[in-house]
Amino acid sequence: MAIVGGSEEATVVVRNKQVILREYVPASGFPKESDMCVTTIGTIKLMLPDQVGSDGVLVKNLYLSCDPSQRSRMTKTPQQRPIRGYGVAEILVCGHPNFEKGDLVWGITGWEEYSVLTKPAADTLTKIQHTDVPLSYYTGILGMPGMTAYIGFYEICSPKKGQYVFISAASGAVGQLVGQSAKLQGCYVDLLKNKFGFDDGFNYKEEPDLNAALKRSVAVHFFPNCNVGGKMLDAVLLNMRIGDRIAMCGMISRYNLGQAEGVHNLIYLVAKRVRMEGFLVPDYYHLYLKFLELVLPYINEGKIVDVEDKAQGLESGPAALVELFTGRNVGKQVVVVALE
Amino acid sequence: MAIVGGSEEATVVVRNKQVILREYVPASGFPKESDMCVTTIGTIKLMLPDQVGSDGVLVKNLYLSCDPSQRSRMTKTPQQRPIRGYGVAEILVCGHPNFEKGDLVWGITGWEEYSVLTKPAADTLTKIQHTDVPLSYYTGILGMPGMTAYIGFYEICSPKKGQYVFISAASGAVGQLVGQSAKLQGCYVDLLKNKFGFDDGFNYKEEPDLNAALKRSVAVHFFPNCNVGGKMLDAVLLNMRIGDRIAMCGMISRYNLGQAEGVHNLIYLVAKRVRMEGFLVPDYYHLYLKFLELVLPYINEGKIVDVEDKAQGLESGPAALVELFTGRNVGKQVVVVALE
Repeated sequence: MAIVGGSEEATVVVRNKQVILREYVPASGFPKESDMCVTTIGTIKLMLPDQVGSDGVLVKNLYLSCDPSQRSRMTKTPQQRPIRGYGVAEILVCGHPNFEKGDLVWGITGWEEYSVLTKPAADTLTKIQHTDVPLSYYTGILGMPGMTAYIGFYEICSPKKGQYVFISAASGAVGQLVGQSAKLQGCYVDLLKNKFGFDDGFNYKEEPDLNAALKRSVAVHFFPNCNVGGKMLDAVLLNMRIGDRIAMCGMISRYNLGQAEGVHNLIYLVAKRVRMEGFLVPDYYHLYLKFLELVLPYINEGKIVDVEDKAQGLESGPAALVELFTGRNVGKQVVVVALE
Repeated sequence: MAIVGGSEEATVVVRNKQVILREYVPASGFPKESDMCVTTIGTIKLMLPDQVGSDGVLVKNLYLSCDPSQRSRMTKTPQQRPIRGYGVAEILVCGHPNFEKGDLVWGITGWEEYSVLTKPAADTLTKIQHTDVPLSYYTGILGMPGMTAYIGFYEICSPKKGQYVFISAASGAVGQLVGQSAKLQGCYVDLLKNKFGFDDGFNYKEEPDLNAALKRSVAVHFFPNCNVGGKMLDAVLLNMRIGDRIAMCGMISRYNLGQAEGVHNLIYLVAKRVRMEGFLVPDYYHLYLKFLELVLPYINEGKIVDVEDKAQGLESGPAALVELFTGRNVGKQVVVVALE
C-alpha cells in the first residue's frame, strides 16, 4: 500500500489482482485455462470519490460466481480486460444514490480484487439486506441461479403437486435448487447428473436411467443452463406426455459447440401439446423480494440447502470456470476472492 | 339400385365408390396418386337400421376435406380400405342418440360415397346448425381448419392490436383464415406463400421477401400445418423479437421427410424469451359454439371469406390430396362428392 499525492484527501493505491481474458475464445470449442491469466501488475486507487462519479461505486469483491452464461461473454469481452460475472462485493466508495459506503451488494462485477462499476452496471446491483446467511449464497441460491430456479419452476412451469419433474444437470447451481423446490412442492423429481451431458459422449439410447426417468409421467422438464442440446432434448421430446411444459434458460452445448446440434423431434410439441418457453431471469428481478420471502425461511429451517463448491483465491478462478463446462463441480461453483 | 330380400323392410343396395389406399405410403417421401385407387366394385345397403346399431350412423358424404394431417394416417390406414378424413355428410340412417335422420354433420368420415360410422367416430361428429352458408365451409372456415386458426390465433398466440403476425403457408386452409383474423384484430400480417416451402428448394438466405418480413417486429409466428420445417423455423428463430410467440399445429415437412430436418436455432428461444407451443385442435372443440358466434357474423358481413379450391368428384380426390403437399392449392382444398 502506498500513500500518493499531497492533497488533504490521501489516495491509497493498492495492487488489484485480476483474471484477464488473454484472447477471445472462439465460438466453437471449450474454453481453456490458458485463455485467461491472473495478473498482479494492476493497481487501483482507493478512497477517491471522484473516480466513481455520481453514478458509480468502487467495490471490494468477496465472492465470484462461475456461471455458464459467462461462456458467451468470452467471445465478446475485450481482450486484456478482466472477465465479468456475478459476484458479491462490499462498497468502499459510493457515488450512486441507491447505495452507501459499507453496503454489501450482489450483481455483475469484474474478476478482480476491486472493481469500479458505473452505469449501467452499478444500477443493476442489488443491496444485500439479509446477512444472517452465508454471503456466498448471493452467488447461488439467493442470487441469479436461485431466481432462475424460482422463476423457471414457479412462473414458467407451474407444476402441480404429485407431478413428475425432470431436471437435466441437477447437480448444477440451478438444477439443485429446482430439485429441492420441486420436492417442497410435493412433486416427484428425476434428477440427471451432469455426467449425462453430451461432453461425455453420452448416448441416451443406451442409458437405462435416462429412459426410465423419461418414461414416467413427467410433467415439467426444466432445462437449466446445462450440458444439454440436441440429443438430450430430442430424447425428452420423444418421451413427452400430453400438456408437458419445458422451461429453457440456456443450452451449454450451444455455447461450446458453436454450430448447435440439430433438434429433430419438435413435431412432438404438436402431438403432445407441449409448451416450450425460454426465459432470461433479469426480466423477473422485480419479483426478487417475493422470492426472498419464500426462500429465506426455507434456508433458515434447513429445508433448502445450497451445495457449494468453493475455489479459494482469484488464482483458482480460471480452472474453476473451465471445469464448470466439463461438469466437475458439484453444486454452485464459487470463487472466494477475499474474506468477508 | 336393386331391391334385395323379401322381408317387410326392403333393403336398397347401391354402388359405393371409394378411394382406397392401395398400399402403405412410407414415412419418408411424398404420397403419389398411384398410392390410391378409385374403385366402384363396393356396394352398401341403405335403409337398414340394424347395420349401424345403437351407436352408429350411415351417412352420404357430400364434401371431403384435403388436410395435411391425412399424410401421417397414410402410413397407418389399413391397406385396401378407404382413406379417412374430415368431411360434410348427411345422415341417412341413424342409430346414434345425438342425431336424427336428415341431419347434416361434419367430422371424420371415409373417402367414399357412403360411410357407416360407429363408435368412436360417430361420437365426434358435429351437427351443422347453420345452413345459410355454403355447406363446404364446414370442411374449412367453419370446420377443423377454421377452429385451428381460431384457437391458434386467439387462445395460443393472443396477439395485440398493432402487432405483426407472420404466417407461413398463408395460402393454405388455416393460414388464410389466420391472416384474415389478424387483420380484423388490427394486426399487420406478413403472408408467406407456399412457394417458399422447402419442397421448392427454398433458401431463406437468398429470399429477400422472407427476410424483409421477418426483420419487422413480428410478435406472432403462426405455423399452420404447412410446408415448414427445419430451414424455415431456423430462419424465423433467427429473427425473433423479445416476447414473441410461436404456435405450431403441424409440420408438413416432417410428414414427408420421414427423418425431420434438424432445427439449430432453438437457443434464440432463451435469448428472446419466446414461447413455442404445439396444440391439437380437437382439444378445443368445446369452444366450437363460441367460435361460431364470432365467425358467422364475419362471414355474413363478408369480412372473412373462405377461398376454396373445389375438385369435382371422388375420382379427382387422389390428385387433389397429393397436390396439397406440393402446395398447388390456393385456399381450402375440397373434394365435391355429391350435390347437396
